[in-house]
Amino acid sequence: SRSINLAVIPGDGIGQEVVAEGLKVLSAVLPQDVKLETKEYDFGARRYHATGETLTDADLDELKRHDAILLGAIGDPGVPSGVLERGFLLKLRFAFDHHVNLRPSKLLPGVATPLAGQPEIDFVVVREGTEGPYTGNGGTIRKGTPHEVATEVSVNTAFGVERVVRDAFARAQARPRKKLTLVHKNNVLAFAGHLWTNVFNKVAEEYPDVTTDYIHVDAATIYLVTDPARFDVIVTDNLFGDIITDLAAAVSGGIGVAASGNINPGRAYPSMFEPVHGSAPDIAGQGKADPSATVLSVALLLRHLGHDAEAARIEDAVSADLAERGALPARSTSEIGDALAARVAG
Amino acid sequence: SRSINLAVIPGDGIGQEVVAEGLKVLSAVLPQDVKLETKEYDFGARRYHATGETLTDADLDELKRHDAILLGAIGDPGVPSGVLERGFLLKLRFAFDHHVNLRPSKLLPGVATPLAGQPEIDFVVVREGTEGPYTGNGGTIRKGTPHEVATEVSVNTAFGVERVVRDAFARAQARPRKKLTLVHKNNVLAFAGHLWTNVFNKVAEEYPDVTTDYIHVDAATIYLVTDPARFDVIVTDNLFGDIITDLAAAVSGGIGVAASGNINPGRAYPSMFEPVHGSAPDIAGQGKADPSATVLSVALLLRHLGHDAEAARIEDAVSADLAERGALPARSTSEIGDALAARVAG
Ligand SMILES: CC(C)[C@H](C(=O)O)[C@@H](O)C(=O)O
Ligand SMILES: CC(C)[C@H](C(=O)O)[C@@H](O)C(=O)O
Repeated sequence: SRSINLAVIPGDGIGQEVVAEGLKVLSAVLPQDVKLETKEYDFGARRYHATGETLTDADLDELKRHDAILLGAIGDPGVPSGVLERGFLLKLRFAFDHHVNLRPSKLLPGVATPLAGQPEIDFVVVREGTEGPYTGNGGTIRKGTPHEVATEVSVNTAFGVERVVRDAFARAQARPRKKLTLVHKNNVLAFAGHLWTNVFNKVAEEYPDVTTDYIHVDAATIYLVTDPARFDVIVTDNLFGDIITDLAAAVSGGIGVAASGNINPGRAYPSMFEPVHGSAPDIAGQGKADPSATVLSVALLLRHLGHDAEAARIEDAVSADLAERGALPARSTSEIGDALAARVAG
Repeated sequence: SRSINLAVIPGDGIGQEVVAEGLKVLSAVLPQDVKLETKEYDFGARRYHATGETLTDADLDELKRHDAILLGAIGDPGVPSGVLERGFLLKLRFAFDHHVNLRPSKLLPGVATPLAGQPEIDFVVVREGTEGPYTGNGGTIRKGTPHEVATEVSVNTAFGVERVVRDAFARAQARPRKKLTLVHKNNVLAFAGHLWTNVFNKVAEEYPDVTTDYIHVDAATIYLVTDPARFDVIVTDNLFGDIITDLAAAVSGGIGVAASGNINPGRAYPSMFEPVHGSAPDIAGQGKADPSATVLSVALLLRHLGHDAEAARIEDAVSADLAERGALPARSTSEIGDALAARVAG
């Protein structure tokens, strides 16, 4: 479409700074005839401290009217662990049915990795976003006593697994290598494992040109550090995806460049795009944060909305910028944003 | 005690070869007056193919009579995934209440790591072994239909968490750095997370000299590749422990040197010691397997039975052997075993 109506949630800490640069690059890349409207929301620790609210039904109604959401980072040491995670981030993922959690990992030239020998890394993790152990199912009895029992229930449905598996097959088919790996732990988690494996194998029949394999999640962490080049597209459950995408971000240049999308592929609700990193209160307000992860999240956002050429221009600009960093003196958050904006405009 | 009555389960594939070397080194290290009795059992794929059995009640009664169990590796591509894992490995862990799953990670001099810059790595993971998502709790309805629902229930008890947390604190206190990190995902898995965090903080009060911290499991995978030196002792749930110990093994020299113990600390049942690696059918029978992980598992076994000096002799021998490997031509499984046996005897 020729207009983008964007909800912007800078959030806390460095969220503010990186989102400003994301918007700068977004404005610079869009052609004249695409109208960008943005509306900012103060969700996160600030709102929580002020009102005790994290995300109300009225907030969801508001957000629903936008084409997409750009989020910086949410969190603050003053808020008890879990409150914003469950009360805002997960609530939004579930309310807007963000069942495709997309996390690309690409080690760009010039970017440092903790791995020896600068391996080739270029894969995408498609993490399920609305099921598994993330549903909040479970409970506690005899809390605080020596006889306490706490359960967590991983809920997996054929409906939920099939739609994310289909999305992953389509993404794998669109890439040159056309390879899809299912990551699970089906030798131990046999109920969920059987469902995932069965659905995966069934859908695979419709994609004869996509090569498939299966790896247990524990072994997947080994390959991510010893042979990351073996991966092209990975599809996995919500919790396994949470774990392996942090590791994937770490090996492919760190969370300074890791982007993610919480996607509703059918666009029944707006999708949300955010850097993988957190609010980093220790460096907030100092212009030290790298806005690249947010800028790359903007590229995912554009691609989701059908602006593929602009998305590619942003990705190329970030690659080029990173490749030159070694030769440049350190720059501030906004200097990096300026450089990226200049590149995409140029 | 001055005798060791050992159950030996070579298992499948390279299991046979590495266990032979483990026993060779064990015999060589024991003082004359310690009587070693071993009895071999054919559990694993061989037994399964022959009889359809994995581990019967009569087998458990047999195994129970021993002081400890040494296992090579179990598994064969001819056996459906999960059958031996759940029918033998997990069944034994649960039947013998192996609630402390001990997995040390130490990057020894001369050993290759996929990480750049040869970082310092010397930590121990204490993984809970009898609870969490490993209990087999859960189920499936409408199997094979588009309306299938599969659940996996993670079961966590104050009793189960407290005993493994206490074990980890004691281990941390006995190490020079005296640091213990709890790894969980308490911002999302709030029921189990609250129990773990609460018990951890309560027991911490009894160990004022142990420094403690908490990290989410996703962040832990980042630190394992960017700053593994930050870890001393880690205590974690069964599934998180499964995942991070494979990664830990990968960064600290690979599964060729990763040892583990499935321990019942009160010795109500025999504990089981095994290399982290699998049966590796692709290289079985060729003398290519590295027996070091099994030999280091024998050291854990000896320490569990109170033979600390002999355990240390084995660990020193493996260190010395690994340090010299770069300068030596490749050796076979039994040549490495011979070299280690000579070192510990000498
Ligand atoms: C903050 C937390 C709820 C979240 C998750 O576990 O999904 C985060 O780790 C992520 O990966 O986006
Ligand atoms: C084989 C499997 C059941 C086992 C586990 O998941 O515990 C293995 O991965 C391990 O870590 O010992």
